[in-house]
Amino acid sequence: MASLKELLEMALRSEIDSMNIYKKASENVKSAILKEKFSFLSKEEEKHRVLIENIIRMKYPGEEINIPESTEVPLPRVTVTEKDPISKLLTQAMDAELASSKFYEEISKKFDDDKGTLMLYLSSVEMSHYYFLKSERELILNFENYDQYFEMMHIGP
Amino acid sequence: MASLKELLEMALRSEIDSMNIYKKASENVKSAILKEKFSFLSKEEEKHRVLIENIIRMKYPGEEINIPESTEVPLPRVTVTEKDPISKLLTQAMDAELASSKFYEEISKKFDDDKGTLMLYLSSVEMSHYYFLKSERELILNFENYDQYFEMMHIGP
Repeated sequence: MASLKELLEMALRSEIDSMNIYKKASENVKSAILKEKFSFLSKEEEKHRVLIENIIRMKYPGEEINIPESTEVPLPRVTVTEKDPISKLLTQAMDAELASSKFYEEISKKFDDDKGTLMLYLSSVEMSHYYFLKSERELILNFENYDQYFEMMHIGP
Repeated sequence: MASLKELLEMALRSEIDSMNIYKKASENVKSAILKEKFSFLSKEEEKHRVLIENIIRMKYPGEEINIPESTEVPLPRVTVTEKDPISKLLTQAMDAELASSKFYEEISKKFDDDKGTLMLYLSSVEMSHYYFLKSERELILNFENYDQYFEMMHIGP
């Protein structure tokens, strides 16, 4: 069974992967609005990486951090290519956020200090991302012209 | 029973109330980070107000929009004062977001066109806010010095 430190290192891998996926998505999508949203998510995951790295350093001072190559267990990876529709990326990213949220909730129980709270914080933030992605998928699956509908949110009568 | 137009007008009232509550909260909290987060939520609700207003104008062209005084049924209101702890405001705001999310999901079924999708979009966005608030409450309930812990997310080693 993985130690708490190993679980945290898996979380680091997952946050780095997610950050890169969102960053790439922000570079590839045409819609300026989606670009901005993926860029926001990428920065969020970067903040989580820093937070987890700091937690590891505080809990295991002086110890080396070994980020694993892969986190396929227990965290699913996003495997879409640039040719796939954006809705597929959103679906996979949603699955990854949901799994991360559960993962952090589990990890939180393994702490005997207030750092467990920070894990519950991350668990909720990932759920927030899940619904953020779900809302975007709702629009993308149902409207051909995403930007046009989004404009309705910005331009008053 | 309320007509679809009346339900949308209730939604307008709710979004205006939420916007004002988040705006006031952003002015009253001391933490610069929380200030920014409440300000973000306030702007989100303002965008929703514009979206719903545009949907009403498209669906009921030329008709007057009558925003009700109150939405206590079915949407709960935030009733905290400045003297209450911020965690109480967060709890009430979470309840309001959850109720709004369910409300939009219900309304979405009453549309026979693609505007129902926009309601599902709003429903997911409010769930995203719910977890966003939940994550903040997690920190606030457990840490006396909120800002100090939040800095861990921003400052790398």
